[in-house]
Order: sequence, then C-alpha cells, then structure tokens
Amino acid sequence: MNKGSVFIISGPSGSGKDTLLVELFKKFPEISFSISSITRQMRENEKEGEKYHFISKAEFEKMIENNELLEYNRYVGNYYGTPEKPVVSAVESGRDVMIEVDVNGAAQIRKKLPDAVSIFIMPPSFSELERRLSGRGTESREAIDKRMNAALDEIKRAEEYDYIVVNRDIPAAVDDIISIIKTCRLQLGRQKHIIDEVLKKC
Amino acid sequence: MNKGSVFIISGPSGSGKDTLLVELFKKFPEISFSISSITRQMRENEKEGEKYHFISKAEFEKMIENNELLEYNRYVGNYYGTPEKPVVSAVESGRDVMIEVDVNGAAQIRKKLPDAVSIFIMPPSFSELERRLSGRGTESREAIDKRMNAALDEIKRAEEYDYIVVNRDIPAAVDDIISIIKTCRLQLGRQKHIIDEVLKKC
Repeated sequence: MNKGSVFIISGPSGSGKDTLLVELFKKFPEISFSISSITRQMRENEKEGEKYHFISKAEFEKMIENNELLEYNRYVGNYYGTPEKPVVSAVESGRDVMIEVDVNGAAQIRKKLPDAVSIFIMPPSFSELERRLSGRGTESREAIDKRMNAALDEIKRAEEYDYIVVNRDIPAAVDDIISIIKTCRLQLGRQKHIIDEVLKKC
Repeated sequence: MNKGSVFIISGPSGSGKDTLLVELFKKFPEISFSISSITRQMRENEKEGEKYHFISKAEFEKMIENNELLEYNRYVGNYYGTPEKPVVSAVESGRDVMIEVDVNGAAQIRKKLPDAVSIFIMPPSFSELERRLSGRGTESREAIDKRMNAALDEIKRAEEYDYIVVNRDIPAAVDDIISIIKTCRLQLGRQKHIIDEVLKKC
C-alpha cells in the first residue's frame, strides 16, 4: 500500500487562499483536509468538526504536553494547532492530506515532516493585494495598513516554500494546486509498485 | 529572466512513448523538443531537422572530441546523440526542453545536468506489454521475445527516474506529463521574481 503525501498550504490575507481551498475541495474531493483544534469559542456560523475541533484549554495543553501536535500557536489568549494523529493515519492509509496553516505553523510542520510539500499562495501584485485588502471600503486606513503589513510579513517568508502559486484567477490557481498534488503521486517513491508488478512475471 | 527546465523522457518499446510525445506536443506546443544528431542514412519518410539532424561520422566524432554532446551512443555502427548547445540556449531563454532518450542516454544526461527532471513511461502491466509487442502478429516468437527482453531490461532501470507515468490511456498519460511540467514551473526557484515584484514596493 502506498502512503499518501502531506501538503502544507499558506497564503496571506488577500491571497484568496480560502476561496481556492473551497474550489479545490469541490474539484478534488479525494484530498483529506486536516481539521485544526482550537480553544476559542465557537461562532454562530461554525460547526464542531467542520473546519475546527473546539476543545478546552486544559485539553489543548495536555496535547502539547503529550507532543500530539504537528504545530501550534497561541493568539490573543487562545490556542490553535494541528493534531498529528489524523494526519498520520490518513497518510498511512494512502490518502493525501492538505494542512492549511500560517508561515509559523508551516515551519513547525516541516521540522516534524520533512517530506511535506509546501505551497504558498501569492497575490499577483502589490497593488492587487492592496485593492483586495481595502476592497470593503468601510475600514480605517490604519486597519488596512495593519492587514497589509501582516500580509507582507508572510510574503517575506514565501521563500521557505517548495511551490509558489500565484492567484491571478481562481480556476487557474486551483489547477496549479491540482498539478502539484498529481505530480507528487507520480514520483518514483509512490509508483514503485507498478514497476514491481510489471517485472514480477520475469 | 527565469530559466527553463530540462525534461528527460524514456520508455521501452511498447510503452507508447512516441504516441504520447506526439499528443503532448499538440496539447503543449510551447515545449521545445531536442533534436538528436545521428549518422545513419536518412529514411524516405524522414526530413532533415524534423526529428534528427543527419550528420557524417567525422562531424559526430568531432562533437565527441569537443565535448559538445549531452549524451551519445553507438549502435550497429552508427552514432546517436544529443547536442548540448541547443538545449542550453533554449533553457537560458526560458524555454522548457524535452529530450527523448533511452536509459543509458538518460544516465549520461543526469551526470551533466543534475537538475534535469526525468520521466519514465511504463506499460500498465506485463501482459499488456506482451500484447503490444506481439500485436502485429506477423513476427516470429523469437523476434517478439527479443523485444520483450529489451523492454524489460529498460523497465529494470525505471527506478533511476524521478517520475513514473503509466500509459493506460493516452489522454490521461499526456495530462500526467503536463502536470509534471507545470509543477516544475511552480517551484520556488522559478517563481522568485513574483515574490520580489510584490515586495519591491515595501
């Protein structure tokens, strides 16, 4: 049985990453999405187990203690993290897993899973990033600048990634991500069984 | 200016490689195909510069002497080889180049161009390989066995390749090759200019 691969996907606010992931899942439902565990309160439009597992701080701290997380982060008093077990079981059973995570989380995962393939979603230009981040037109200059700086700080770390996908238009960017996933499946390591199969009759 | 990539493609008789390459070129004409230099006589259906450059043995031997070949081979008294210069110029000008070559040629190219990406085309099974090689029904068992053994000898070296594409049906196999080429273009090394472009206004 061939193992699956782990894909890490990151992209700043304004990269359009979330929309890409929704479309990717529609076009390519066989990929398994990793569900983060978080300790903040559930919001009205959220459901347990859909995008997040909502757990208590005590439970989260126990996971940290037991080294059960591929990566985690603390933000405004709450924990956010990726449990290792579901990722490892999916991969062992031959499924590819996509983990959506920020640049810090990606760096932590790479240390634990050096074979993970990482993809950074880029906005097509500075001005387009600015347009996307100020698009709502209801926010102060200060709030926009803050988001812009956070996005640029993430982009400065794009060089840590294996692949850069520029999100100029959504279908093309989704196809790029699918190409990367398909290509990983064609790597020698995942195709050795075919060679053995053809040769076994020799 | 971003450089292109070099792709090496091999596959035994019966893998369907030649048909795949014709279809690949139709669907993906921006890829440049490397033209081999050979010393055998031109056949009736061949044209100079289409698939081969027909040169004299003296010319070929001069190329060997001057180290102008990425790989070469001698077969039944004739030379077959891949000139380095057109490959390097295409890559320098940003084009991707596909070199069709056997397992020995591929091994020689990898030594000179360690970044070359190599793809091995596989028949889907032993029995399908046998069916394809004996399909014409006009040849002796001995001739078929000889081709079968040559094919199996090539397949034994498939593990030297980065990617294995199984040619079950042609459109799917062509798409696999296109995915590999597109994925190489998304690698960090070929996308750094985008990061610089977005960041240059900071």
